[in-house]
Parts: sequence; structure tokens; C-alpha cells
Amino acid sequence: MDTASLTGKELAAAINADSKERAAALTAAGTAPTLALIVANDDPASAWYVNSLRKAAERLGIACERIDLGADASAETIRAELSARSADPATDAIMLQTPLPAGVNLDDVSSAIAAAKDVDGVSPLSLGLLASGLDGFVPATSEAVVELLKHHGVALQGRLVTVVGRSNIVGKPLAQLLLAENATVTVAHSRTADLAAVTTPADIVVAAAGRIGLVTGKHIGDGAVVIDVGTNEAADGGIVGDVEATSVIGKAAALSPVPGGVGPVTTALLMRHVVVAAEKSRA
Amino acid sequence: MDTASLTGKELAAAINADSKERAAALTAAGTAPTLALIVANDDPASAWYVNSLRKAAERLGIACERIDLGADASAETIRAELSARSADPATDAIMLQTPLPAGVNLDDVSSAIAAAKDVDGVSPLSLGLLASGLDGFVPATSEAVVELLKHHGVALQGRLVTVVGRSNIVGKPLAQLLLAENATVTVAHSRTADLAAVTTPADIVVAAAGRIGLVTGKHIGDGAVVIDVGTNEAADGGIVGDVEATSVIGKAAALSPVPGGVGPVTTALLMRHVVVAAEKSRA
Repeated sequence: MDTASLTGKELAAAINADSKERAAALTAAGTAPTLALIVANDDPASAWYVNSLRKAAERLGIACERIDLGADASAETIRAELSARSADPATDAIMLQTPLPAGVNLDDVSSAIAAAKDVDGVSPLSLGLLASGLDGFVPATSEAVVELLKHHGVALQGRLVTVVGRSNIVGKPLAQLLLAENATVTVAHSRTADLAAVTTPADIVVAAAGRIGLVTGKHIGDGAVVIDVGTNEAADGGIVGDVEATSVIGKAAALSPVPGGVGPVTTALLMRHVVVAAEKSRA
Repeated sequence: MDTASLTGKELAAAINADSKERAAALTAAGTAPTLALIVANDDPASAWYVNSLRKAAERLGIACERIDLGADASAETIRAELSARSADPATDAIMLQTPLPAGVNLDDVSSAIAAAKDVDGVSPLSLGLLASGLDGFVPATSEAVVELLKHHGVALQGRLVTVVGRSNIVGKPLAQLLLAENATVTVAHSRTADLAAVTTPADIVVAAAGRIGLVTGKHIGDGAVVIDVGTNEAADGGIVGDVEATSVIGKAAALSPVPGGVGPVTTALLMRHVVVAAEKSRA
């Protein structure tokens, strides 16, 4: 079977073109949309990601400020910064980077981010708004999975989707989004006794566990659609997904590539959230 | 196969004995735990349920006040009452009854209930605390399912559980609780194309869709455990579940009865939440 490549580049470009126009309109009306990136680590992968977000923001006319609290910052320091930026009218959007210092819990400190500025949807209130079907920002990676599937014409209603991974920022919110699209959803994870038993019957498999080569051809039913959310560091320094592409290609109907699949759509959606937050705060 | 009956009466009695003792200690120290039941309907089933809650509270030494806003109450009126009770130090716990007046959305108005008093865990923040794994009140029915399984020694880790129903008050929070217990979880619902395909492989099936006879013997694998969350009105005026017991008995290893299964545990957990809320507010 020919396996289609579900690239995210065209979709990301379309989202970015729209965001750029809306950011320009906001800037023309007075103030550019403004994103605060809060960093409390000295992790190289985080630094690389923050840098890529700054470049993406710059290209779209979004002002982006990096606030470095240091790798030893306490939970109190981080919460105080998040609260201050939440109250600051000059800040439209806030993203707290991971990893956090040892002993600091993301779910705990993220509750200090005002829901209206929580563009990555990480706070408990944002997750609850999603679970309730109310208006709020959805974690961008999970939204990117759904948008990528829709963009490539993959139907979700009534179909069986297995999500491998149950993180608070991808697997769990993605399950909520898929249920809202009327998919039947299975969430599997590291403690799942027989992974293949729940992935092979699925019409769509989403690999979001953060483990290289976790999903292989033997986990996939013939003609399934496979979305790879993994962004693992490869031995050569590049980025590699959770899916073993060599054994999945030829068996799956479609596979999203890493890099170039979910990733660019995630960044584009994050930037769109910043623009939306700015539009709402100006309204 | 003999099918065990997973009754909830002993578990409910044990929880209630503990709650009664704790309520008595609070009363001895000054004030009885106090639950406000907010009603904005003239539905007979709701009236019956409110009455049963009042009796349950009374038996345990919990003060219970019924506040009737009328079946025509506006969202503003309901929100104002919920906000007032949230701010009132004499109210430890708040439950908003359904159905609500036409046009009033539960998820929307429930955000006016302070999380510390939201003993049925219905507000967006409570649902988000659950999704984040943080401390908050869990919707009592979903908690009752997990507690009933544990009470009867049914292991959850690594096992495949299919939940039929995706409501915000049962199906979706139950999926979160089961994931936290390391179960592999499938959520099916009215749009699921082939229900039997996702229920027959399951070690445990939870029927929580609110439809009489939805889950029958042909939906159940040999030796599965079946939990019936349904509380549908039967033709004879009694209560009947979502599971067709006649065809499931003899095939399943165990089935929770309706009435007498999840129901009494749910009420007991709600009352325990009231006691916990009161203890925390006094601390």
C-alpha cells in the first residue's frame, strides 16, 4: 500500500498567513500582540525551542519577550512572575517553558496563568474548560493533531482512534478533542498490558508517548492513519518521532512525518492563540 | 459462569459510618457541616433525588438546606445564588441540581461554585483539577465506580476498561480516574459505529449512557466485569440501569445491580465530600 505523507507545512503556512494579517491589523490599531515566554531552566532543548518560538513570532509581527528566572527559581518566584504577567495589560499571552526546576510542579504553578492568556492551555482551568466544552485555549499540540487530520480529509466521526500517551499536555486533552469530534477514543500508555491489542483495531493511531520506535508496523492495522507526535532527540542530534517509519510505511494508509508533520502546525496554532488573546483583550 | 453481584451497600455503609463520626466531631466543635442544594426546576425525579439527599444528610448529622429558585430562574439568578453561597462562611458545600431551566448551561453557571465547595465536582475548575491530577472534588458517580471496583477487589492497572457514555459528569471524569489507576481506557458513546467491537475485548465495561438495555450479553466478553451506572425510570416507576441483566448474567464474571450498586456509594461519597469540605473550611 502507498502510504501518504501527512505534512503540516501547507496548513501551517495558511494559519500563519492569517495570523500575520491579524497581527498587522492589531499593530496598526496601536499595539502588536505580545507573548511572554517564561523560562526557568538551562536545558539546551528548551533554549532551542524558545528560540524557534521567538523567530516564529518575529516573522508574524508578534512581539516576544523571554523572561529568564534561572534554573533554581522557586515555585513562589515562578508563580509571582506568572501572576504579574497575568495582571499586566501589556502582556497578551504567557507560555511557561518546561522543564521546570526540581520540585516545581507544572500543574500547580500553571494555575497562576490567567485563562485568557494561557495560550498553551496548560492551567487546570484551561483543561477544565476543554473538558466542559467551554471556550478556552486548547493545548496546541493536541489541537494540531485534530487540525492536521481535518486538513488531510481524514474523517473522525464514529471512527476508532487510539492515542498512545496520557500526558496532561497531549494525550489527555487530545482525547477530549477527539470525543468532541464524535470519535471513539482509546487512551493507551506505558502501563498498557498489550499495546498492539488496542492499536491494531484502530482506524487512526496517534503516537504521543515520547519514546523512539514505540509504534511499529506490527502495531498498525492495514490502511490505518498514523500521526506521530513524538519529538525525540536522535543520536545524530536531529529530531525523531515515536513511530518506526520504516515498518509503518507500506502498511499504513498515511503517516505524518517528523519533522514537518504535527510540529509546524503546533507552532502556527500557538501563534494564532497569541493573536486571538490579543484581539480579545483589545475588544 | 456464576455472575457475582457487586453490591454497593456494605461500602456505602462503611463510608457513612466514618462520615457520621466526623460530622459529629465537627458539630461538637461548633457547627454541623452544611450543604446547600440549589434547585431551579419542577422535575419530579429531581425532587425525589433532592429528598433522598436530604434524608441521607440528616441521617449523618449534616445540615441540609434546599434553596428553590423556581423553574424559570435565569442564568444570572442562578449564578448570583451560587456566588453568594460560595462566599458565605455558613455554607460548606454546594450542589446545583439538574435539570436547569431551558437555555441555562450547567458548565457555564457551575463556574460560579467555589472549587472548595463544589462537592459534586461539576465546575470547569474542578474538572481541570481532576485532569491535572491536583486536589479537588471528583464527580461522585465516577468516583463511586472506581471505589466499588476496588472494594470488590477488581484490579485496574494495565486492564482494558471501556466506558460507554461521555457525559461531563460521569463518562469523561471516569476516564480520567481510570487512567490515574493505570487502566487502558476506551470511551464509547452514541456515535460509536460498532459498540460491541470496543466492549467485547474489555476486561471491565462501564455502562453510563442513560439508555435502558444499551449493554447486553452480546456486548460483553466472557468473564468481564460490568458496572451499571444507569438510573433510568422504568415503566413500573422503579429505577432500571443501562445493562440488560438477563443476558449479561451467566456471561459476565460480575455485575453491579441497579438499584443497590453504584447508587448508594455515590450518595455516600457526596456526603463524605461535604464532611471533607467542612473539615477543610474549619482548619
